[in-house]
Amino acid sequence: MADKPLNIAIIGQGFMGRAHSNAYRQVKHFFDVPLEPRLKVICGRNPENLARIAATWGWEETSTDWRAVVERPDIDVVDVAAPNSLHAEMALAAAMAGKIVLCEKPLAVSVEEGERMAEAVRGAPNMVWFNYRRAPAIAFTRRLVEEGRIGQVFHYRATYLQEWGNDPTRPPGWKLRRSEAGSGVLGDLLSHLIDTALYLNGPIREVSAMMHTFAAGRDVDDATLLLARFANGSVGTFEATRYAVGCRNRNAFEIHGSRGMARFNLEDLNRLEFFDAGDARNLQGGRNLLVTGPDHPYATNFWKPGHIIGYEHTFIAALGDFLGCLSSGAGFHPDFDDALGVQRVLAAVERSASERRWCTVE
Amino acid sequence: MADKPLNIAIIGQGFMGRAHSNAYRQVKHFFDVPLEPRLKVICGRNPENLARIAATWGWEETSTDWRAVVERPDIDVVDVAAPNSLHAEMALAAAMAGKIVLCEKPLAVSVEEGERMAEAVRGAPNMVWFNYRRAPAIAFTRRLVEEGRIGQVFHYRATYLQEWGNDPTRPPGWKLRRSEAGSGVLGDLLSHLIDTALYLNGPIREVSAMMHTFAAGRDVDDATLLLARFANGSVGTFEATRYAVGCRNRNAFEIHGSRGMARFNLEDLNRLEFFDAGDARNLQGGRNLLVTGPDHPYATNFWKPGHIIGYEHTFIAALGDFLGCLSSGAGFHPDFDDALGVQRVLAAVERSASERRWCTVE
Amino acid sequence: MADKPLNIAIIGQGFMGRAHSNAYRQVKHFFDVPLEPRLKVICGRNPENLARIAATWGWEETSTDWRAVVERPDIDVVDVAAPNSLHAEMALAAAMAGKIVLCEKPLAVSVEEGERMAEAVRGAPNMVWFNYRRAPAIAFTRRLVEEGRIGQVFHYRATYLQEWGNDPTRPPGWKLRRSEAGSGVLGDLLSHLIDTALYLNGPIREVSAMMHTFAAGRDVDDATLLLARFANGSVGTFEATRYAVGCRNRNAFEIHGSRGMARFNLEDLNRLEFFDAGDARNLQGGRNLLVTGPDHPYATNFWKPGHIIGYEHTFIAALGDFLGCLSSGAGFHPDFDDALGVQRVLAAVERSASERRWCTVE
Amino acid sequence: MADKPLNIAIIGQGFMGRAHSNAYRQVKHFFDVPLEPRLKVICGRNPENLARIAATWGWEETSTDWRAVVERPDIDVVDVAAPNSLHAEMALAAAMAGKIVLCEKPLAVSVEEGERMAEAVRGAPNMVWFNYRRAPAIAFTRRLVEEGRIGQVFHYRATYLQEWGNDPTRPPGWKLRRSEAGSGVLGDLLSHLIDTALYLNGPIREVSAMMHTFAAGRDVDDATLLLARFANGSVGTFEATRYAVGCRNRNAFEIHGSRGMARFNLEDLNRLEFFDAGDARNLQGGRNLLVTGPDHPYATNFWKPGHIIGYEHTFIAALGDFLGCLSSGAGFHPDFDDALGVQRVLAAVERSASERRWCTVE
Repeated sequence: MADKPLNIAIIGQGFMGRAHSNAYRQVKHFFDVPLEPRLKVICGRNPENLARIAATWGWEETSTDWRAVVERPDIDVVDVAAPNSLHAEMALAAAMAGKIVLCEKPLAVSVEEGERMAEAVRGAPNMVWFNYRRAPAIAFTRRLVEEGRIGQVFHYRATYLQEWGNDPTRPPGWKLRRSEAGSGVLGDLLSHLIDTALYLNGPIREVSAMMHTFAAGRDVDDATLLLARFANGSVGTFEATRYAVGCRNRNAFEIHGSRGMARFNLEDLNRLEFFDAGDARNLQGGRNLLVTGPDHPYATNFWKPGHIIGYEHTFIAALGDFLGCLSSGAGFHPDFDDALGVQRVLAAVERSASERRWCTVE
Repeated sequence: MADKPLNIAIIGQGFMGRAHSNAYRQVKHFFDVPLEPRLKVICGRNPENLARIAATWGWEETSTDWRAVVERPDIDVVDVAAPNSLHAEMALAAAMAGKIVLCEKPLAVSVEEGERMAEAVRGAPNMVWFNYRRAPAIAFTRRLVEEGRIGQVFHYRATYLQEWGNDPTRPPGWKLRRSEAGSGVLGDLLSHLIDTALYLNGPIREVSAMMHTFAAGRDVDDATLLLARFANGSVGTFEATRYAVGCRNRNAFEIHGSRGMARFNLEDLNRLEFFDAGDARNLQGGRNLLVTGPDHPYATNFWKPGHIIGYEHTFIAALGDFLGCLSSGAGFHPDFDDALGVQRVLAAVERSASERRWCTVE
Repeated sequence: MADKPLNIAIIGQGFMGRAHSNAYRQVKHFFDVPLEPRLKVICGRNPENLARIAATWGWEETSTDWRAVVERPDIDVVDVAAPNSLHAEMALAAAMAGKIVLCEKPLAVSVEEGERMAEAVRGAPNMVWFNYRRAPAIAFTRRLVEEGRIGQVFHYRATYLQEWGNDPTRPPGWKLRRSEAGSGVLGDLLSHLIDTALYLNGPIREVSAMMHTFAAGRDVDDATLLLARFANGSVGTFEATRYAVGCRNRNAFEIHGSRGMARFNLEDLNRLEFFDAGDARNLQGGRNLLVTGPDHPYATNFWKPGHIIGYEHTFIAALGDFLGCLSSGAGFHPDFDDALGVQRVLAAVERSASERRWCTVE
Repeated sequence: MADKPLNIAIIGQGFMGRAHSNAYRQVKHFFDVPLEPRLKVICGRNPENLARIAATWGWEETSTDWRAVVERPDIDVVDVAAPNSLHAEMALAAAMAGKIVLCEKPLAVSVEEGERMAEAVRGAPNMVWFNYRRAPAIAFTRRLVEEGRIGQVFHYRATYLQEWGNDPTRPPGWKLRRSEAGSGVLGDLLSHLIDTALYLNGPIREVSAMMHTFAAGRDVDDATLLLARFANGSVGTFEATRYAVGCRNRNAFEIHGSRGMARFNLEDLNRLEFFDAGDARNLQGGRNLLVTGPDHPYATNFWKPGHIIGYEHTFIAALGDFLGCLSSGAGFHPDFDDALGVQRVLAAVERSASERRWCTVE
């Protein structure tokens, strides 16, 4: 029986437009789902660029009028990959039009926006592209947590370290303008850290944060740092920055519990360091796991054990799981509600940084 | 102007069939070449499996009669990805039929076969899938060598360490049968090491080798080790094995020269360790390069700096370069002649292991 | 000419008593100073243990009456290595008796104590055993900072991770009692981090901190975490804990500036990772420096390049430098004033944790 | 009861003279043995240097006439740390005089010499300074082998990589002259690798080797490489060189067996990577062991877990164990017979390199 087609419209033609396009193209090669994504329309503001990306990735049509596209009856899915400040408007329009809505992170630029968005899609399939949950090593860490192999968590420590903020040769894009990005590293990088933390370690109760801008004249945060208390009694530190010279894309976490430790860095996304406190004392040591199988998440989807995957596969896996849920009717995570949870933490971070005191996540 | 279509027939439906299929599907997304691969026919012996893989990857047709397929006038390219012992017959038939021939490694199971194959394709575009040359870190090492950053080479050291030979639960496949594979790790793993060595360090003059089979009743080599003298005066060691418990897929080299060192391991294929002997003495140290740009090979083809690629991208890049050469008329390497050079070294290795003395590469 | 003898009395027979004894025994083997430490008296509360340690390390006498010893005219140097709560009383008595005073870290259990101690020794040679400043890699980082190789600092990140707090089999010692230790990780571990930070990155202006005790019934902090703003405009995080399961003794820092990065971990104390942002873009990478020479701090004192030193050598080097200063009349650092500076930061940390807001270092 | 004094005479004032002096000074601080080494005489050819080293380390006397010294009735132990070509004559004289003989490695410059030396000391306590057996991580590997945690060994791989051979600024010492050193890296570096291999993996049956000199006019080997077959059925590669630019002192081994893997590098001498093939498949990974306790060799002798030791401690531990055996009457290893075993392998290596064929170890 032929797979059911699923007509996709994407809004956004930047780096995420490319990463999502690749996921649509590749998902069926690695995930056995009875749905067939069709790349119908790609929307954006720059027609020339649009034509080029559409040709490269095989989008059937291009459009500079996303509002018209989300109304089209032949569109099943609207994928919002535009600058952050536009997410709410686009997602709300798509939801209103009855579409399945997929949205890039951060979900929104405020909790209020996020609440309206989550409300709008409630009950319908939806997804937010916190793709790193599908890095096999992160998914595997979640499994370790669930199996009790970390035990009672004491410490959680996360950094997202980039360096391009300090590069004067780099052309300023929308990510450096508050009007479009809503924030700097808060929404861009810290949102990833928080989503992973909530996924692995549960709710955050309160935070004490600072936000800092190094560059003169920039109106977004170059660095955001915080202390956190989790609901499970553990304590944490988070640091997101674009001024960590020496680090290209170091999205990393460490989690220490009564039974073990896990340590991850996206620059080595196929690796997980796992420490088992139950090993004999003289045989204890961080285990350098190559999370490419056997018996690892997504090991049967991609290549063979020892054959590593890349950045793009986290998007493919997220989409593969989403389509699987769509087909089976199961709930997919992270959804808009999950991303709203991230948004609430980000709001507490901003409040704390502004008021220079601990703030509760509300 | 529309890209010129290029009709592909592939013979082989195993792991390489999958990896090549992916490359055909993906190449145009990352390489700007005026040729459009069309996945026409996939050939193999097992019809059920064929149908499944054809459906997954979008091959238009399947066939269990490769001989008929290579004769079809609508086929432009024949890609040989069958067990090693069949390469010669298939490649010769395809060359005879005037096709562009692509062949998996090792090219052949003997020098004599390899010579006939290289002769048959001479003058026509052809390629051998020594895909690791296109790992960005390996291509970058070649550039370092060419720029003189390694200097006069003293030592070359390479290992290809796998562990599955020792796994009794693993079903024996064609790779463990001499009749189909021609050899064990010699053709499977050592061929990769030798191709990389010839690419980076030039011709090998002579070898002293040993081949060993650990498993009772197995008629192929589980491990092959050798010492080598290169034409440039450097000396080397090579070790390929399926009994290196603890190593999933450690394809690694180290090269020491008068001006620097480079060190690589495929399990971290986005990394290269580079040591510059010209640095101030107290600032000398292996540099941990994340070879994802800027200014690295293939950095503009795939993602952004700091966003890693996976195993499959080495195939995509090999194909991308091949199509670029096909389009421009430039010569592509590694071709059948290059692979024949590898074969000559493998033959000297076998001879040396058998005669227990140093043997010249002829 | 014979070296001038220097008669030492030490108060303390624990782990530090041993580490200091070793330093006195070894210093002349590696440092060419015209002073000869003589191990005169070791003081402590447990006579049996005292006799044993005196015999092992060659202390001429033992005493359970430190007050009498510090008054002895034949004693030149009093080395305070007793539990933290006793430092002030002992150091003050020794200073009053006109001795050269050496004191273990943390200097005191309060700023008020520290101020009195610093006042008491002002003008006389004195030293605090923040021994890690003499880890060659840390001393070398300081040199890199001074030479401008890090540039304008953006981020400073430090952790001191131990795991024994969570070990129920471990006998509780004085370090777990507020009455003797004054605090938990604050004085024990964080003090080291702060001293190193002040040494490498200058004064801290303000902090936002939390202190946490995981173990029921314990009256000292098991973990202390903080955010910091430095006077030079950089921002930092600090984390000290005894609940970092998986980490034996991970005293680590990372510093990112406009021109480079440095990264260190005491568990690999002979290593420093250094990133030079001035390298060609495609050759940038953390350099794995083995800080054993040539041209590294203390390289000519100990062994040959590539021959690593251990934990104890940081004490030997501190003592060697101190004796050199004593002999030449140069000022030694860290002295009581430097350690008082650490104390002021620790006090701000405690205040901030208690008041749940940012506090200025006063 | 007072410890029994043991009067030491050492012949040699170079780097080993210093390392041994340190061991004599330190051994009683870390090892509880009822013997007290007394540093009586240090012998050498250069009186000025002798006086300086004697003053630094506290040797009571100096002498330029080692023959007279080994005859002195007040000397109990003669420690031979002179250039290799003198070992035989000195050790034989000392043995003849009834002394306890300790000898630096390599034992001799020929098997014939070694046989006479081993014969001369047979029945009396003796020791060869293959100090690396006492690196805690190497001693622990031996324990892992004995406990069956490595299982049936398949592969052994060892390298000793130094780079100073290529440094034209370095003054040529006796190590670069065949007349004094007997050989180049063969005796200097390969001997260490072979001793460790025999200790961990048992006898070597046959070898195929090459020796190479890169520097014009040098009469010793700059690099020696070999393949080996062990008596236990495993196969191995060895490589010792002074031309491995980028490596200060990389004395490393890897051992793969049916049940696990161990990997070591002297530049990180407190670390051992251990892979347990018995772990669940998805939790298998090289464990990064910090071999500083608990339950590791020498953990109770030196510092606390997490507090690393340095190069010199391998000498202290060797001496500590030797004195323990001397006191208890137990046999110590490695002794002259063990070192003769190494010599037999080195001889086979030289023969094989010369005859360009496999040679049996005789």
